Amino acid sequence: MSKIEQLVQTLKEQQADAMWVSNPINIFYLTGYKSEPHERLFALLVRADGQQILFCPQLEVEEVKTSPFTGDIIGYLDTENPFDKHRETYGTLLIEENHLTVQRYHALKNAFSVHTFEAADPIIRALRNVKTADEIDTLRQAAKLADKCMEIGVAFLKEGVTEREVVNHIENEIKKYGVNEMSFDTMVLFGDHAAAPHGTPGDRQLKNNEYVLFDLGVIYNHYCSDITRTVAFGQPDDKAQAIYDIVLKAEQTAIQHIKPGVTISELDDIARGIITEAGYGEYFPHRLGHGLGLEAHEYQDISSTNQNSLEAGMVLTIEPGIYVPNVAGVRIEDDILVTEDGYESLSGYKK
Amino acid sequence: MSKIEQLVQTLKEQQADAMWVSNPINIFYLTGYKSEPHERLFALLVRADGQQILFCPQLEVEEVKTSPFTGDIIGYLDTENPFDKHRETYGTLLIEENHLTVQRYHALKNAFSVHTFEAADPIIRALRNVKTADEIDTLRQAAKLADKCMEIGVAFLKEGVTEREVVNHIENEIKKYGVNEMSFDTMVLFGDHAAAPHGTPGDRQLKNNEYVLFDLGVIYNHYCSDITRTVAFGQPDDKAQAIYDIVLKAEQTAIQHIKPGVTISELDDIARGIITEAGYGEYFPHRLGHGLGLEAHEYQDISSTNQNSLEAGMVLTIEPGIYVPNVAGVRIEDDILVTEDGYESLSGYKK
Repeated sequence: MSKIEQLVQTLKEQQADAMWVSNPINIFYLTGYKSEPHERLFALLVRADGQQILFCPQLEVEEVKTSPFTGDIIGYLDTENPFDKHRETYGTLLIEENHLTVQRYHALKNAFSVHTFEAADPIIRALRNVKTADEIDTLRQAAKLADKCMEIGVAFLKEGVTEREVVNHIENEIKKYGVNEMSFDTMVLFGDHAAAPHGTPGDRQLKNNEYVLFDLGVIYNHYCSDITRTVAFGQPDDKAQAIYDIVLKAEQTAIQHIKPGVTISELDDIARGIITEAGYGEYFPHRLGHGLGLEAHEYQDISSTNQNSLEAGMVLTIEPGIYVPNVAGVRIEDDILVTEDGYESLSGYKK
Repeated sequence: MSKIEQLVQTLKEQQADAMWVSNPINIFYLTGYKSEPHERLFALLVRADGQQILFCPQLEVEEVKTSPFTGDIIGYLDTENPFDKHRETYGTLLIEENHLTVQRYHALKNAFSVHTFEAADPIIRALRNVKTADEIDTLRQAAKLADKCMEIGVAFLKEGVTEREVVNHIENEIKKYGVNEMSFDTMVLFGDHAAAPHGTPGDRQLKNNEYVLFDLGVIYNHYCSDITRTVAFGQPDDKAQAIYDIVLKAEQTAIQHIKPGVTISELDDIARGIITEAGYGEYFPHRLGHGLGLEAHEYQDISSTNQNSLEAGMVLTIEPGIYVPNVAGVRIEDDILVTEDGYESLSGYKK
């Protein structure tokens, strides 16, 4: 059953009339057509009778026709109101509450005389949560390209180089491997600068005997990778090395516990337990990881509050970290596929 | 009066209790602190009594402290509910209806016992619509860097080069001028491929005697440029050249009419009139332009339906185009500042 067929099935079960999909990433997931028309209306309407209608600016209609999408297309000019072109009533309409704006919410209510809105988010999330074989192949390639970025970046390290220069070098060189876009702003942070977990690469110059934190990923055929390595340049001091060892142990131990049926919060508990026991609990201020796919950060949260269980086909990151101001910041992150009987690490750069 | 002081003044005039700003770009505009914490809550609360509170993930608190923002900070961990840390009632709350999601709308209603929501969008838009002298200086630099991109791209044209190669070359080379990010995906389209106005650069190879359409811009110190040039490689045929001449005349004539007090729709009418008179009206399917600033596309629409008047300090694009399938696509776009007595073109690459 195709993804759209599964959606239609769910609409029928919930006795809803239609689903309004407004998140361009979800539209791509469901149709194979990607667009980001900024403030202009772009949405996929999936009806319980199976009809699919894509609303898009008139100047995209030709592109849509060459895409895998096979439903109806409603193009509109900037001077037209797209809702005038589809006068229907949808008493119960499912919307992405986590994406739809308040403005469009009011507009849909009027345009389609909606009586009840319900959340489409959990339905689409559940689909995207478990990757198909094709998606896994693509994510594997994306992770290998992130490994390649690490190779490129580490080979470029030398005393006096700036964080920004390393970022630029990685992003330039990886294009030779067919990468046109990173999955987020590449982060390269030196020494104590890495102790700000969301720091911005700048003119800080590399000194001998400090750690370099790389957090990076690529977009390969629309799918993302997201890995982190903290690499010693020279020989960092004992305290920094001890922190590294704790983070590595936390990461590896959590990964080794990955298999279908395991409660997600347990993974966070395992990693956090190791870090807390070593006395650094307060310096690990974020969740353990997150889902990975068409977005670098997607459903689900790998955190202490998530009581869902792992399922085969999920792809997630595991990324514990310890950040001690003025001392060091260490994070290690891999992209992990949950398999039928355990896990496969899609990323493999040495650690 | 600072931007925030102007906001507070408006809150008082409207007898609203507070404004909840959720769009990260608006938060940057108002605070000088930039962040994009994905699905995590990040918002600025501005109260009618002048108090400002920034809600952000705990791991950003240190970065916020080093930013220009001087208000209160509420940091929260992934395991905490940020609203638990600010128990207040705001009977009338202004929100960005064009940004706030339905999910957060429901959350705010509960958290702050909101009785009436009103739109914050027009208030912030009005502020951002008129640029300060500093903003104009920055936009001028951004436009000059877009001109530089054009120089780089045109010098790289040769038979057999692909669109994607030209894009990569421009984006690599412009980094030497301090540009770390383009303001949108650089578009380079050859010959009839440019007839899809939102086409995607690919493996199409350049042939002699065709036009090359460049649509590109950079982000310089957070501000965007966005220019388009359609450049002859060799000597395109007469029909394509005729289309070029019409687009250029439409663009130049519209620009020459720019000064404070002119109704925006008139600009669209002028350009569209020239194109329609030449018989290509149906091949100009988009608005004439848009505002430019922290976003590549921002308020206002330069379109036939916009009855607002130009004001000194506005920065906008003028970008008529003609796209004839299987023949040619031509668009020409400049970044224009409305001055006290006319206009200044911030971009200047030859056309």
